[in-house]
Amino acid sequence: MPKELIRQLLLENPSQLDSLFADAMPADLADALASFSDEELMQLLPHISPEMLAIVVQEFDEFQANRLLSMVPTELALEIIEAMSDDDAVDMLRWLPAELKERILSALPSDSPLRNLLAYEEESSGGLMTTEYLTVRPEWTVEQALQVIRAEAEKAETIYYTYVTNRSGRLVGVLSLRELVLAPPSAQIASIMRTNPVQVTDTEDQEQVAALFRRYDLMALPVVDENGILKGIVTSDDIIDVVDEEATEDIQRMAALQPSDTPYLSASIFKLARQRFGWLLVLMISALFTGRIMLRYEELLAQVVILAVFIPMLMDTAGNAGSQASTLVIRGLALGDIQLRDWWRVVLRELAVSSLVSLGLASVNFLRILLLEKYPLEVALVVSLTLVVTVVLAKLVGSTLPILAQLVHLDPAIMAGPMITTIVDALALITYFKIGELLLDLA
Amino acid sequence: MPKELIRQLLLENPSQLDSLFADAMPADLADALASFSDEELMQLLPHISPEMLAIVVQEFDEFQANRLLSMVPTELALEIIEAMSDDDAVDMLRWLPAELKERILSALPSDSPLRNLLAYEEESSGGLMTTEYLTVRPEWTVEQALQVIRAEAEKAETIYYTYVTNRSGRLVGVLSLRELVLAPPSAQIASIMRTNPVQVTDTEDQEQVAALFRRYDLMALPVVDENGILKGIVTSDDIIDVVDEEATEDIQRMAALQPSDTPYLSASIFKLARQRFGWLLVLMISALFTGRIMLRYEELLAQVVILAVFIPMLMDTAGNAGSQASTLVIRGLALGDIQLRDWWRVVLRELAVSSLVSLGLASVNFLRILLLEKYPLEVALVVSLTLVVTVVLAKLVGSTLPILAQLVHLDPAIMAGPMITTIVDALALITYFKIGELLLDLA
Repeated sequence: MPKELIRQLLLENPSQLDSLFADAMPADLADALASFSDEELMQLLPHISPEMLAIVVQEFDEFQANRLLSMVPTELALEIIEAMSDDDAVDMLRWLPAELKERILSALPSDSPLRNLLAYEEESSGGLMTTEYLTVRPEWTVEQALQVIRAEAEKAETIYYTYVTNRSGRLVGVLSLRELVLAPPSAQIASIMRTNPVQVTDTEDQEQVAALFRRYDLMALPVVDENGILKGIVTSDDIIDVVDEEATEDIQRMAALQPSDTPYLSASIFKLARQRFGWLLVLMISALFTGRIMLRYEELLAQVVILAVFIPMLMDTAGNAGSQASTLVIRGLALGDIQLRDWWRVVLRELAVSSLVSLGLASVNFLRILLLEKYPLEVALVVSLTLVVTVVLAKLVGSTLPILAQLVHLDPAIMAGPMITTIVDALALITYFKIGELLLDLA
Repeated sequence: MPKELIRQLLLENPSQLDSLFADAMPADLADALASFSDEELMQLLPHISPEMLAIVVQEFDEFQANRLLSMVPTELALEIIEAMSDDDAVDMLRWLPAELKERILSALPSDSPLRNLLAYEEESSGGLMTTEYLTVRPEWTVEQALQVIRAEAEKAETIYYTYVTNRSGRLVGVLSLRELVLAPPSAQIASIMRTNPVQVTDTEDQEQVAALFRRYDLMALPVVDENGILKGIVTSDDIIDVVDEEATEDIQRMAALQPSDTPYLSASIFKLARQRFGWLLVLMISALFTGRIMLRYEELLAQVVILAVFIPMLMDTAGNAGSQASTLVIRGLALGDIQLRDWWRVVLRELAVSSLVSLGLASVNFLRILLLEKYPLEVALVVSLTLVVTVVLAKLVGSTLPILAQLVHLDPAIMAGPMITTIVDALALITYFKIGELLLDLA
């Protein structure tokens, strides 16, 4: 949507803007609007419906959303928020600066479902759900149910599933629209509904919600309170964001970053620096202890200077071997492929895999040192033996620490590359020098 | 679903199994069935409908799915495959051993849409799509369209969107069910449909498909061929798997693993070893060059042995600082938060962030060496200066290499922790020894 065209229409034929904007893809319109100045934006806004603005604002980043909602009168801001589906409206309100949020909240009707939704944790099932769904009663006939669905479909976020609740609002069953359409019109809902539908309580963590969507391939999931009263539904389009967020969080933790879901280019320099400093400091100080090990074997190093050449290689290989194992286990735990009770299977597999891998690496290394570099046999032996022992140790440490972390309710993702590297570096050096002392037969 | 109960019912009251199985959650029934022997399973199968088996088989791992479909007659296997929605049926067929797949394919009717779907790349939009969707014509009225939808809803994977195609099958518009229900019954579809719907061609990579779902918050996306003829739709529940797969692939690449989507506990030991060996070998050999640097500065190290103490700390900190930057950039590129044209913004940000972080780390380090460890001032200076230079270099290397990789159409994820560590280790050592030579004023 070219900026110049919009400017031209605004001057010459503003009424055409209405249809141009009405037909635009919201994400594209958002990109276009973001590039206009405050004054131009104010002139453009009357040509966009509140419903369209509601979608456009959701495409904006924090800064742009705040800019638009701050510049319009509170009534229009409220109208935009209310035009959103209510899970999105809640996310938007959470996002806005306190002052603007309060201004909109105070204009909100006292019975608005947004008030209840805002009370939930952002990363809980209650924080993800919408209250826009359809319910029918178990005692109704299929025909009655279909009538209600036809009349109320517009209010629902999905009509793919219809939820069956009893008089007190308890969720007692679920029906797909397909099942309803296929059933004889006179059949009773209770006789055709699926009882015990998959459901979550409203305080469940969003990671668990995503796990249910994965396990049962759901399009929507009902959310109930502790008494089984239906409170809302979570739909699969929202879970794509959750899955992205959770993966980003894990990936960041695995790289020794404080997790943050602010996009890289929107975060402030100080925020980016804070996100990195803590772990770097901790790991830097831990690595100083590894340095002490080198100091302790100073004499050995002075006698066989050639040993120093292999130190970066041994440290890096140990670190990489450990990271590989920890990464596979962390991701397996996150996706539910690995359970805590599988820990012994993981250990056995890592023993087998690391034996294969380390023997392969050590052989290449042994031949290389002996034939290409032409160092003495003892050196080749010390380095290659160290490689075998270290890779096996690294794989065991890398695979078990994430499981231990999960066991004590820490995020396994912190036991990834950087942490594992720091630990196995020390193991690698100790192994190297011990084997060196044994085999090199020094005075 | 307790195994003992099933065994008991099988002996005493097998007819009750039918309703027990019909009401079960498929994933739970799958877990139960997987634990029975072949003989018991053959006795249980007649109590489960082909529709239920179709869902259960999709919950199985490769081994179990193959076991069940191999043991039943080809007609039942075909019935089970045909009861699946066709995108799932195609995935299942791709999964099966060649012999079983051929057996089922040869029994498949020659006009089955599965034959066309199988021709697509597994990780393309065509490989993800289903052909079970509803179309209406632009010249129909809303009332006509709703009649068709009611009659054919059962065949569609989603009825949330209705696609509008012309006589030759070209996609010309889209309508949500909500819009249809709200429109006057006599209105013409062409007058209310949204034209130019978001769409993909059938050969597009699944990563791009996921990007569209993210950008436009879609529940379903139409797939067209090169002539714009509607071929199928992709639904958001399938995108959850894609997002998981793509994140897993990135996470594995970032840890120097050959990507694989076989769950950790299902992969063979050899497969796990192969997945790890290649990169470990490449990185091991590269790290040997870093070792050469130490050899070149052998004399300096011999004169100021204390310098060796800080080598692991400098290498680890540089590696971690580089990994942090590369991780943020890789994830930003994957989610579309960072575009190639933003490279200079990334460089500027990393310069600013790394200056802040490195000054912080170097200060802590300087004071620590001087006050706690009581080493000479020159040593504290050399180590701290090296830290500043190395962290800045590491952040620049870490942030730009993924962008360069993307530029030459490599996966940015290979430019993560392990690769960056190998490169910045060498930079860290060279910096350290150069600064050491300059400041320590040796003979």
